[in-house]
Amino acid sequence: MIKDTIRDAVSEITNTCQNEDVFVTNEDQSRMPSRGVIIGILKDLRRIVFPGYFGDENISSSMPDYFLGNMMTEVYEALWQQIYMAFRYRDGFEYCDEKYEYRAKQISEHFISRLPYIQKMMLMDVQAGFDGDPAAQSKEDIIFSYPGLFAIYVYRIAHELYVQKVPFIPRIMTEYAHGKTGIDINSGAVIGKYFFIDHGTGIVVGETTEIGDYVKLYQGVTLGALSTRKGQQLAGVKRHPTIRDHVTIYANSTILGGQTVIGEGAVIGGNSFITQSIPAHAKVSYKTPKLDLNFDEHSDIWD
Amino acid sequence: MIKDTIRDAVSEITNTCQNEDVFVTNEDQSRMPSRGVIIGILKDLRRIVFPGYFGDENISSSMPDYFLGNMMTEVYEALWQQIYMAFRYRDGFEYCDEKYEYRAKQISEHFISRLPYIQKMMLMDVQAGFDGDPAAQSKEDIIFSYPGLFAIYVYRIAHELYVQKVPFIPRIMTEYAHGKTGIDINSGAVIGKYFFIDHGTGIVVGETTEIGDYVKLYQGVTLGALSTRKGQQLAGVKRHPTIRDHVTIYANSTILGGQTVIGEGAVIGGNSFITQSIPAHAKVSYKTPKLDLNFDEHSDIWD
Amino acid sequence: MIKDTIRDAVSEITNTCQNEDVFVTNEDQSRMPSRGVIIGILKDLRRIVFPGYFGDENISSSMPDYFLGNMMTEVYEALWQQIYMAFRYRDGFEYCDEKYEYRAKQISEHFISRLPYIQKMMLMDVQAGFDGDPAAQSKEDIIFSYPGLFAIYVYRIAHELYVQKVPFIPRIMTEYAHGKTGIDINSGAVIGKYFFIDHGTGIVVGETTEIGDYVKLYQGVTLGALSTRKGQQLAGVKRHPTIRDHVTIYANSTILGGQTVIGEGAVIGGNSFITQSIPAHAKVSYKTPKLDLNFDEHSDIWD
Amino acid sequence: MIKDTIRDAVSEITNTCQNEDVFVTNEDQSRMPSRGVIIGILKDLRRIVFPGYFGDENISSSMPDYFLGNMMTEVYEALWQQIYMAFRYRDGFEYCDEKYEYRAKQISEHFISRLPYIQKMMLMDVQAGFDGDPAAQSKEDIIFSYPGLFAIYVYRIAHELYVQKVPFIPRIMTEYAHGKTGIDINSGAVIGKYFFIDHGTGIVVGETTEIGDYVKLYQGVTLGALSTRKGQQLAGVKRHPTIRDHVTIYANSTILGGQTVIGEGAVIGGNSFITQSIPAHAKVSYKTPKLDLNFDEHSDIWD
Amino acid sequence: MIKDTIRDAVSEITNTCQNEDVFVTNEDQSRMPSRGVIIGILKDLRRIVFPGYFGDENISSSMPDYFLGNMMTEVYEALWQQIYMAFRYRDGFEYCDEKYEYRAKQISEHFISRLPYIQKMMLMDVQAGFDGDPAAQSKEDIIFSYPGLFAIYVYRIAHELYVQKVPFIPRIMTEYAHGKTGIDINSGAVIGKYFFIDHGTGIVVGETTEIGDYVKLYQGVTLGALSTRKGQQLAGVKRHPTIRDHVTIYANSTILGGQTVIGEGAVIGGNSFITQSIPAHAKVSYKTPKLDLNFDEHSDIWD
Amino acid sequence: MIKDTIRDAVSEITNTCQNEDVFVTNEDQSRMPSRGVIIGILKDLRRIVFPGYFGDENISSSMPDYFLGNMMTEVYEALWQQIYMAFRYRDGFEYCDEKYEYRAKQISEHFISRLPYIQKMMLMDVQAGFDGDPAAQSKEDIIFSYPGLFAIYVYRIAHELYVQKVPFIPRIMTEYAHGKTGIDINSGAVIGKYFFIDHGTGIVVGETTEIGDYVKLYQGVTLGALSTRKGQQLAGVKRHPTIRDHVTIYANSTILGGQTVIGEGAVIGGNSFITQSIPAHAKVSYKTPKLDLNFDEHSDIWD
Repeated sequence: MIKDTIRDAVSEITNTCQNEDVFVTNEDQSRMPSRGVIIGILKDLRRIVFPGYFGDENISSSMPDYFLGNMMTEVYEALWQQIYMAFRYRDGFEYCDEKYEYRAKQISEHFISRLPYIQKMMLMDVQAGFDGDPAAQSKEDIIFSYPGLFAIYVYRIAHELYVQKVPFIPRIMTEYAHGKTGIDINSGAVIGKYFFIDHGTGIVVGETTEIGDYVKLYQGVTLGALSTRKGQQLAGVKRHPTIRDHVTIYANSTILGGQTVIGEGAVIGGNSFITQSIPAHAKVSYKTPKLDLNFDEHSDIWD
Repeated sequence: MIKDTIRDAVSEITNTCQNEDVFVTNEDQSRMPSRGVIIGILKDLRRIVFPGYFGDENISSSMPDYFLGNMMTEVYEALWQQIYMAFRYRDGFEYCDEKYEYRAKQISEHFISRLPYIQKMMLMDVQAGFDGDPAAQSKEDIIFSYPGLFAIYVYRIAHELYVQKVPFIPRIMTEYAHGKTGIDINSGAVIGKYFFIDHGTGIVVGETTEIGDYVKLYQGVTLGALSTRKGQQLAGVKRHPTIRDHVTIYANSTILGGQTVIGEGAVIGGNSFITQSIPAHAKVSYKTPKLDLNFDEHSDIWD
Repeated sequence: MIKDTIRDAVSEITNTCQNEDVFVTNEDQSRMPSRGVIIGILKDLRRIVFPGYFGDENISSSMPDYFLGNMMTEVYEALWQQIYMAFRYRDGFEYCDEKYEYRAKQISEHFISRLPYIQKMMLMDVQAGFDGDPAAQSKEDIIFSYPGLFAIYVYRIAHELYVQKVPFIPRIMTEYAHGKTGIDINSGAVIGKYFFIDHGTGIVVGETTEIGDYVKLYQGVTLGALSTRKGQQLAGVKRHPTIRDHVTIYANSTILGGQTVIGEGAVIGGNSFITQSIPAHAKVSYKTPKLDLNFDEHSDIWD
Repeated sequence: MIKDTIRDAVSEITNTCQNEDVFVTNEDQSRMPSRGVIIGILKDLRRIVFPGYFGDENISSSMPDYFLGNMMTEVYEALWQQIYMAFRYRDGFEYCDEKYEYRAKQISEHFISRLPYIQKMMLMDVQAGFDGDPAAQSKEDIIFSYPGLFAIYVYRIAHELYVQKVPFIPRIMTEYAHGKTGIDINSGAVIGKYFFIDHGTGIVVGETTEIGDYVKLYQGVTLGALSTRKGQQLAGVKRHPTIRDHVTIYANSTILGGQTVIGEGAVIGGNSFITQSIPAHAKVSYKTPKLDLNFDEHSDIWD
Repeated sequence: MIKDTIRDAVSEITNTCQNEDVFVTNEDQSRMPSRGVIIGILKDLRRIVFPGYFGDENISSSMPDYFLGNMMTEVYEALWQQIYMAFRYRDGFEYCDEKYEYRAKQISEHFISRLPYIQKMMLMDVQAGFDGDPAAQSKEDIIFSYPGLFAIYVYRIAHELYVQKVPFIPRIMTEYAHGKTGIDINSGAVIGKYFFIDHGTGIVVGETTEIGDYVKLYQGVTLGALSTRKGQQLAGVKRHPTIRDHVTIYANSTILGGQTVIGEGAVIGGNSFITQSIPAHAKVSYKTPKLDLNFDEHSDIWD
Repeated sequence: MIKDTIRDAVSEITNTCQNEDVFVTNEDQSRMPSRGVIIGILKDLRRIVFPGYFGDENISSSMPDYFLGNMMTEVYEALWQQIYMAFRYRDGFEYCDEKYEYRAKQISEHFISRLPYIQKMMLMDVQAGFDGDPAAQSKEDIIFSYPGLFAIYVYRIAHELYVQKVPFIPRIMTEYAHGKTGIDINSGAVIGKYFFIDHGTGIVVGETTEIGDYVKLYQGVTLGALSTRKGQQLAGVKRHPTIRDHVTIYANSTILGGQTVIGEGAVIGGNSFITQSIPAHAKVSYKTPKLDLNFDEHSDIWD
C-alpha cells in the first residue's frame, strides 16, 4: 500500500533529520545561503565586468553608469544577505545578528570596490587568450564562449570572498564553474595576471597553489597535492605546487606537492608527471617512448 | 526562395520520420518519458535526501514530515508515470496498459521505501568526503557543492531503477549527472558505502564495475572494458573491473577488464594503466621515468 | 560608505568601457548576437532532427509536416537575425545593413536546405553508437542521453555555419556543447559519417582536424596542435592531425600535429602520445611498463 | 505553538475533505480539467483565429499553413484531454475510459472543423466594431484591444463546446473572459453575426438568451431572468429574453424574462428597465424625468 | 539628445523621491510588503480551502494531510513575514523588530487556526450558489469559475487580517479580487454565511456594511455611504447599510447610509435607489414607469 | 479523420489570411507592436513613477538615480521600437524606415522628458484619493491597491502618446487598464489634476471628454456620446461632455453629449441621466421616487 510506504519513509527520514548534525538546527529561523541566488550574483557580476555581452542591455547607445550603478546596487544587496546567512549558518547563531550583518555588509562593500580591479584582470586574461590561441577569431569569441575565461572569471570573484574567510559561498561559486566547464580551480589559489586556459576540461588547481603572471594551462592539467591521506589534519598546510611567471603546461600533465616549484619560463610537455621542482626556462618532457606498431601478443587489451 | 526551401526540407524529413525505426510509432498515443520531468524528479529527491539544502523550505523551524510526505507523494506520482511511459515506449504497446501501470506503480512504491536507505548511504558518502579532503571546510560544503557527491547521489537513485530493469530512465539520470559533473557512472555499477570522489572530472565507471566500501577515486580515473569491438554481443557480460574495500585510485589512472580485481586496501598511483589484478594492500605505481630537462632535439613537439 | 564605493566603482568601470576596444561601439544600435537565442536555436533544431524526443510534441499521432514546417520557419527567422547581428558587430557597421541582411538570409536558407542531410548523418551516428557500445540498451538511449551524440550534433550544426564564415555563432554553439558534455570539437573540423564518441569527457578536436568515416573516439582523446606559441600567426594553418576511416582511438590518448596522419583502420591504444604518422591497420600501443607493486621508497608521492 | 496549530488545522480540513461531496473522489486517479490548460487553449486559438496579432509569429513573411497546422494539432491534443477529464470527473468514472476518450476526440475534431466558421464570424464582429465606434482608429485596434471583441471571441469558442454538452469547460472559458472584461456572456446564449459590444463592463447575457444579427450592446446591459428563486428547478427553462436583428441597447439597460422579445430594429434607450416585449423598430425610452437642480432639502443624501 | 533628457528626468524624479512623504524612508532597510507574495498566499490558501481544484495535486489518490500541512507551513512562513513588513513600514520602524515579529507570528498562527472555519464558510457559500443559480450545472462549476465565489473567498481571508488590524495587506487582497471580478468588497465588512453573488460585476460593499446569513446580491449592487465629503474625518464611523438575513437585492440597486437597515427577508427590486430602512419581508420596487415607444421628439438623445 | 479535418481547416484559414485586409501584409518583415512588451513598459514606468512600490528594488537604502536612469534607458529603448513598429504597420511600409525610426525616437525622448510631470500629477491624484476616501488608511494603500489610481496612471501615460498621434499603443494601454479595473478611460480625454475615482468598476470616459481639476467620479459613471449611429463619420468630432473643476459625480450616473457642460463645483447625484448642461454649483438629482413596499401585483417580476 503506497500510503503506508510513504508514511514509513517519511517517519524514518524525519527521524534522521532530527538526529544528524548536518540537518539539526536550532529553533530559530536558519536560512542557508541559496545556491540559486549565488549563481544569480555571478551572472549579474558578469554583466558588470563584461557589459553588453551577457544581457539585453544595449550598452553602447545608452548609459553605462546607470546600468552599472543599478547592477552593483542589486549585487551588493544580494551579496551581503548571502554572506550574512553563510556566517550565521556556520556559527550556529551564537553571535548576535547585528555583528554578522555589519561584517557581511563590510565585506560586500569591499568586494564592490574591487570590481574595477577584477575587470582589469579579466581584460588581461582575454588578451592572453587571444594571443595564445590561433583558433580564437576575436576577443569577443573569447568573452562569449571560452570556458577557460569563465572559470578564471568565477575564480577571481570567489577568491575575493575566500580571502575574507566567507564560508560556503566561494566553494559554491567555483563548483558552479567546475560544473559548467570541467575546470576546478579552488578559490584559495593565488593566480597572477594574463592567465590563459585552453580547452580546459579536467583541469584541477588546488587550494594552496600559487600561479604567477603569463601562465598558460591546457586541458587535463592537475596542480595537486601529493597525498591527502591525513585528511582534515592537512587543512591550511601548503600542499599544492608553485608555478612561476611565463610557465606553459601542456595537456594532461600532473604536478604535485607543496614543495614543487616550476621555475620562470619553464615549459612542461604534455602527459608529464612531476613531483620535483623544475628550474627556470627548462623544457621538460619524457623522452617519447617507442611505439609498438603491432601488438598482437596483447590483443586482448585493445583488441 | 526560402518558402520552397522549407517545403522541400519538411517533406524530406517527414519522409525520414515515417521510415526510420527510431521515429516510427503506432497510431496510438505514444508519449516518451520526458527528460525534463525526470530531472525534476532528481531535484525533488535531492530535497528529500538533503532537506533544507536545495529548496526554499525552512526545515528546521517547520515541520519536516509534512514537507517530506508531500514531496514523496509528488515524486511517486511523477515517477510511476515516467516508468509507465518508458515501458510502453520500449515494448511498442503490445501489452495492455493496466499491466504496465501496475508494474510502474509497484516499482515506484518500492523505490519510495528505499529512500531512507539511500539517505543513510549518502550521509556516509558525505562523511567520506569530509574525512578525505583537507579543502572541505565543512560537511555542508560537500552537500552544497561537491560534484562527486552529486554524481554518487544520482548513481544511487538510478541504480535502484536499473535493478528493476526500468528502461531509458536510469541512463537519462546518470547522463544528466555526467553532463553536470564530468563524472560518468553507469547505473549498473555496484558501489559500496563511504564512497568518495575528489574533483572527479573525467571519471568513467562502467556498467559491470563492482566497487567495495571506503573506496576513493580521483579525477580522470577510468574503470573500463578492455575492448568493446564485439558491440551488442557483449551486453550483460562482466567486462569492467572489481575494486575491493578501502582502495584508493589516484588521478587519471585507467583500470580495465572484467577479470581485473584490485585487492583490498590497495593504492593505485596516478596515471597508471592497469589490466591485471593487483593483490591486497599493494601500492602500485610506475617507476617515475626520468625527465628530460632540455628537449631541444624535439622542439617541434612542445616548441 | 557603500554609496560612495558604488559611485567610485561605477565611474572607474564606465571609464574602462569607454576606452577598451571590446566595449567601444559606435553610436548606432549595436546588438550583439545573443547566446540565449543561439542556444534556443540549437534546441529547436534538435526537435527537428530528432522529432518527438526533446519536446512535448506527440509526433506519431499528429502531423509531422506542420510541426517541422513551423519549427523551421521559426529557426530561419531567429537564425538569420543572429547571423545578421554577428556580421554587423564584427565589421563595425561599415557596410550597409541591407547587404548584411541579404547575406544572413542567404546563409540561413542554405542552412535549412541542409537539415535533411544533417538528420541523415545523425541517424548514422546513432547507429554507430548502438553498434559500438554494449551498454547501450537501445538507439533511443543514445538519442536521449549520450553526450557524445549531443556534441556531434552540435558540431554538425555549427560546422555548416563555420563553412559559411559566420563569426561568433559556431564557437558559441560548440562551447555550449563543450560545457554540457566536456567534449570540445572545434566547428572547423571536418568529420565523416558513423562517428562515435564513448563517454567523451575531456575530448578535444582541433580546428583543422580531419576525421574520416566510422571513427570511434573514447574519453580524454586530444587531437591537437603541436605548439601554438606563435599564436594568431598560425591562424588558418593546418596544425591538427588527420584521422582516416575506421580508426579507433582509446581513452586519454593524445595525437598532435598537422602532418600526423593515422592510417585507415588503425587502432590507437589508450594513454598513447603520438606525434608521428601511423600506417594503415597498425595497432599502436606502448609496451605496458612493468608495475612496481611496492613503492615504499617514494611513499611521499602517493603516501 | 504553531506546530500544534498547523496539525489541528490539517486534521480538521483533512476530515472535511474526506466527507464533503465536492472533495470526495474514488480511489482511482481523478484529474480535474485544468483551468490553466483551458486558458492556454483559448490563447492558442486566438493565434489561429487572428494569426499575427497575439504571438511572436511573423505570419506575413512566413508560412501560415505550417503555423496554423501546428497550432491546431496542439490545440486538438490539449482540448480532447481536457474534455476527457471533464467527462470523467463529472460522471464519477462509472463508464469505461475508452468511451470518454472516443467522445472527447470526436468533439475536439468537430471543434477544429468549426474554426474557419468561427474566424469568419469574428471578422464580421470586427467589422461591426469598426462601423459602430467612431473612436476605433482601425480594425487592428479592435482586434488588439477591444474587450467586447475578446468576450465575443471566447463566447463563440465556448458555445461550440456548450452545444456538445461538455461540462465545466465552457463555464471556465466564459468566466475567464468575464474576469478579463467584466462582460459575462453565458456560453449557452445563441448570438448571430455582426455582434458589437462597446465598452462592455457590467454586461450580463444569460444562458437562454437569443440574439440576432447586427445587434449592438453598450456597457452595463443585463439580458437576464425575471426571478431565479426556484433555483435548480429552472435549469434548462427559457428564462432570458430574445433580441431580434438590428437591435441597439444603450448603456445600463436591463431586459428581463424568457417571454420578452425585442423586435427587429428596435432601439432601447439607456438605463431602461424592460420586462415586456417591444415591437419592431420601436424607439424605447423613459421620458427623461425633470432634474431637481437644488436639492437642499435632502442634502443628507448627496451632501 | 536622449542622454541629457534621461539625466534631467532622473534628477528631477530623484529629487521628488527624496522629498515626498510616500517615498521617504529611513536609512535602514525598509522592505514594503510585496503584492506578488500576497497574491501568492491567496493562491496557496485557495488550494488549502479547495484542495484538488487549483493546483496539480491529485488529492484523492494521495495524502491530503501531507499536502495540507506542507502548504500551511509555507503559508505561515510567507504570511508572517508580509505582516511583519507591513507593520514595520507603517510605523516607520520606531518599535524594535522583535515585537513586530512576535505580533506577526501570533496573527499568522491565529489565522492558520481559522482555516477550517473559513473552509466551512466557503462550502456553505458554494451551496448557496448552487441553490440560487439555475445556470450552475454543478458545485464544481461554482468552485472553478464563479467570480462571486472568488470575491467572497478573498473577502473572508482578508477580513481575518482586517480584524487583527494588519495594515495594507487586507486592502491589497480585496483589490486583487476587485481587479479579477469587478466585485469590490471592503475587508472591513461583516458578512454571514450562505452568501451568494450572481454575476457580480460592479458590486460595491463598503467598509462598515453588515450582511446577515442567506443574502443574495446581483451585479451592480452598491452598499455604500451617503456622502464622503468629510473624507478622513469619517474614518471608522458606521456609514454603510445593514442587510439582515435572507435578503435578496437585484441587479444595479443602490442602498446607502449607515442608518439604513434592510429587514429580514426583504426583496429589493432591480435598479432601486434606497436611502431609508426597509421593513422585514417587504418587497420593494419602484412602480415600473411607462415606456415611451416612439420618442422622436428627443431623437437627438438616442438617435 | 482528425488529420483531414486539420488539413481542411488549415487550408480554409490560410485562404482567409491571404484575402482579408487585417491579415494581408507585404512580403517584408512586418512585426506588429507587441501587447506583451507594451504592458511591460507600463509596469516599468510604474516603478519609475512610484519607486519602491512595485518591484524588488529597495529604493531607500540604495541609489535611486541609478535605478531610475537604468529603468528609463530600458523604457526608452523598448518604447521607441514599439512606436516604430506601430507607425510602420499602420502605414503599410510606404515611407522609408529611417523616417519612422527618427520620429519614434523623438516621441520617446519627449515622453521621457514628461515623466517628472506625470509623477507630480500622480502624487496629486494620490492626495485626492486620500482626502476623498475615509476607508483609505494611508496613501500607501492607495498607491498599492486602488484600481482608480491605476486607471488614471495608465491614462496619463497613454494620453502622452495619443497627443503625439501614436497609433495602436494608447488604446492597448487603456484597454489593459480597463481589463484590470473595469474603468475605461479613452486616452484622448483631457483630465486635470487631483482626479479621484472611487471603486470605479463600470466607469466610461469617452475620447473627447474634458475634465477639470479636483473632479471625483464614482463607480458606474458614464461620460459618453449621445449617439454613435453615424460611426466613423463622427471620428474626431467633440461628442462627449465637459466637466469643470471641483465637480463630483456619484455612482452609476450617465452624462452624455459633446455640448453638455457640468459647471464648476456641481454635484451630480447617483443614478442620474443627464443630457443637458448643468450650471455651476448646482446639486442635481432626481426627486427620489416613492417606493412601493408591497408589489404583489407584479410578483412575476421579482418573485
